[in-house]
Amino acid sequence: MLKKLLIANRGEIAVRVIRAAQDLGIATVAVYSAADADALHVRLADEAVNIGPPAAKKSYLNIETIIAAAIEKGCDSIHPGYGFLAENAGFSDAVTAAGLSFVGPSGDAIRLMGDKVSARTAAAAAGVPVVPGSTGRVDGIEAGRHVLEETGFPVMIKAAAGGGGRGIRIANSLSEFEQAFPQAEAEALAAFGDGGLYMEKVIGKARHIEVQVLADGKDAIHCYERECSLQRRRQKVWEEAPSRCLSDALREELCASAVALAKAVNYSGAGTVEYLYDDEADRFYFIEMNTRIQVEHPVTEAITGIDLVAEMLRIAGGEPLRIRQGDVTVKGHAIEVRLNAEDPAKDFAPFPGKIGDLRIPGGPGVRFDSMLYNGYQVPPFYDSLLAKLIVHADTREAAIVRLTRALGELQIDGVKTTKRLFLALAADPSVKAGDVHTRWLEGWLQDNARALAG
Amino acid sequence: MLKKLLIANRGEIAVRVIRAAQDLGIATVAVYSAADADALHVRLADEAVNIGPPAAKKSYLNIETIIAAAIEKGCDSIHPGYGFLAENAGFSDAVTAAGLSFVGPSGDAIRLMGDKVSARTAAAAAGVPVVPGSTGRVDGIEAGRHVLEETGFPVMIKAAAGGGGRGIRIANSLSEFEQAFPQAEAEALAAFGDGGLYMEKVIGKARHIEVQVLADGKDAIHCYERECSLQRRRQKVWEEAPSRCLSDALREELCASAVALAKAVNYSGAGTVEYLYDDEADRFYFIEMNTRIQVEHPVTEAITGIDLVAEMLRIAGGEPLRIRQGDVTVKGHAIEVRLNAEDPAKDFAPFPGKIGDLRIPGGPGVRFDSMLYNGYQVPPFYDSLLAKLIVHADTREAAIVRLTRALGELQIDGVKTTKRLFLALAADPSVKAGDVHTRWLEGWLQDNARALAG
Repeated sequence: MLKKLLIANRGEIAVRVIRAAQDLGIATVAVYSAADADALHVRLADEAVNIGPPAAKKSYLNIETIIAAAIEKGCDSIHPGYGFLAENAGFSDAVTAAGLSFVGPSGDAIRLMGDKVSARTAAAAAGVPVVPGSTGRVDGIEAGRHVLEETGFPVMIKAAAGGGGRGIRIANSLSEFEQAFPQAEAEALAAFGDGGLYMEKVIGKARHIEVQVLADGKDAIHCYERECSLQRRRQKVWEEAPSRCLSDALREELCASAVALAKAVNYSGAGTVEYLYDDEADRFYFIEMNTRIQVEHPVTEAITGIDLVAEMLRIAGGEPLRIRQGDVTVKGHAIEVRLNAEDPAKDFAPFPGKIGDLRIPGGPGVRFDSMLYNGYQVPPFYDSLLAKLIVHADTREAAIVRLTRALGELQIDGVKTTKRLFLALAADPSVKAGDVHTRWLEGWLQDNARALAG
Repeated sequence: MLKKLLIANRGEIAVRVIRAAQDLGIATVAVYSAADADALHVRLADEAVNIGPPAAKKSYLNIETIIAAAIEKGCDSIHPGYGFLAENAGFSDAVTAAGLSFVGPSGDAIRLMGDKVSARTAAAAAGVPVVPGSTGRVDGIEAGRHVLEETGFPVMIKAAAGGGGRGIRIANSLSEFEQAFPQAEAEALAAFGDGGLYMEKVIGKARHIEVQVLADGKDAIHCYERECSLQRRRQKVWEEAPSRCLSDALREELCASAVALAKAVNYSGAGTVEYLYDDEADRFYFIEMNTRIQVEHPVTEAITGIDLVAEMLRIAGGEPLRIRQGDVTVKGHAIEVRLNAEDPAKDFAPFPGKIGDLRIPGGPGVRFDSMLYNGYQVPPFYDSLLAKLIVHADTREAAIVRLTRALGELQIDGVKTTKRLFLALAADPSVKAGDVHTRWLEGWLQDNARALAG
């Protein structure tokens, strides 16, 4: 078992990891930028190290400083959280080279899955269905024209080194394609230092379904799926588990494919295999694998009773997977919503500020993961996630009612938040019916701008 | 299903019942005394009615006013919570007579179980083991002397109309008995308007184990047991589930006996059958049945996933029991501690005051049920319970570590609380080993007075 862990992150995920470590009796070291001296993760950890100025490049993304802090404090391990360095293969390698345990997969596994082309190739090799498109990087626009024969229009042109929705263009015709391809190449080179592109058919009205896996480098299990179809600008805002649109047979197939991929790449730690699911065709396609713990992991924890972050720490400590596939059972339905410091009435403009009165909902089936406290000054330098509200109930219908109740109790004074968005979504007939797809929310937001402004 | 519920209570249980009602789509009406105008239950309910001055006799115990408020507001039902009128048979009868649903058992069931002698008789008739003692009320001191032949010393003399540890005397010898008996008679008459007494053998070093039942007047199920052996002055302070000292066979026997008793008295609603368990003899004895939801119900909710208050509301709405015994399964271990506004360093003297900064622990497996908010003025008129912290984990050991972590995060400024007591108990070797009995804490408190004062 690990003895002393440095958490190379901030915000709610740093708090989450500290809690998991403390629950396992592991000592904790927080790191913080000058903007986070008063942050909750600093207060909750056993020790804390100032790693630099507010700019993330000089603090939370500074590999050398972070590893030096871990060594100085006598840590045996580093948890990267999500974002920042979580999917930086070089960081995983550097942590390991420093003789520490990286709480996540090897640099090679991150590299393989981080390059969208090699990930797609690995998935296809493991028998996981991929979206029709290029078999690898597209070697110039002429080669791209040949791929169009397989994909048709609309087609997506993606940066091989991209991720999280960045570096994506969509072309609806040959002329759009011929204009977009060189632009995408130049942008990818500028953004990721790698102009490599690949192409995929656009799956219309698809759902986003992802499978949680846990693996120890030898064996792998799944903890069933999450559905995250409610997205704004390709960012998830509302996640739930299980997905209600899958048949039991398809669920088994989907989850088995995720396990096959994790095993094929000797994956270690917690990971998520993401898919698009085409309702009408009843087919799913691999999108990418995220080689970290995800923001929405608590919905899986709610329905399975598994503490995913604790399992990551056990695996990083050298324990073999202690949960067998047959022991993973699903109970009820869980929903998570992301409360961001954003003004829904003003196109979700960031709204940092000082937290006034904070009232946290409670009772059975309600979990609130956050770094907020009364009087906390939300710094303007980082992402706008303030809190995750997770509800769990017997059925999806009951979970939506409980979500509405808990949102009603929740009060976060001093900043604007996305709470109003979720109250409106929870009351929407399409959301209630589960009749949504990944681009549904964008249209809804246009239709409901006035309601959100009210 | 019920449509509109009046909650005849205050504090955390009023909040708890409001949440359950809202989760089921039932409209809620709070009642409050003049001391509770700013209380959280008033804020969370859809409507609220002022029912009188701070003195409970004139507000929360005022049957006529409460029923009139329910009728005026168009309620179809009343939930009594615990304490106050929850086990007042006349209240149940009056609510029913007014054409409303009482969320709890009939007046007759409350009466039968409220009289300790008739309860003991009913239990024995249902085949539930009772503590050796009088078969009914003891008809004077001469009859009491005969009962001594069966009980020996020490013997307990109890008021037939008592409960919750009130009206109890213990005699260690014949001379003590002869002195205590008439005193107990006079006290019972003064306290309960009923001088009836019964006698029971004192079970040394027993554990307190209780079984949660749910019943609909026809059928009954159990939701397994809780152990509440850590008590101070017969008041529970730390409760957990399951009890680790029971064999599977004895657990089944114990739970089956509780179901048998509930069925025998045509019980309806949530109830708890309480037992003393003698480790050494491996025998259990019926103590009493509590005909209400109990403070410690969340530990059962944590391990079974059943929302007990929601089930009470469904049953009161006329639904038959929807949970079958075979569907009740136990997962992990849960512990609840009662955070009271009391100073552990000063013999737990009440410490009402104004809440300053409030920090609530979070993360998986942590639940916090409370009526507290920042700036809340704790009134001095009612019981001192501020909050219940409930933790749930895979094992008892992991639950104790999680409890320690969550208590460390918890901050309730402005008042003294029992938090320090629980941090000390969670670190105590006997508590960790589960090696305690109902009088263990009293001795521990004497030995550890200095630690609590520090």
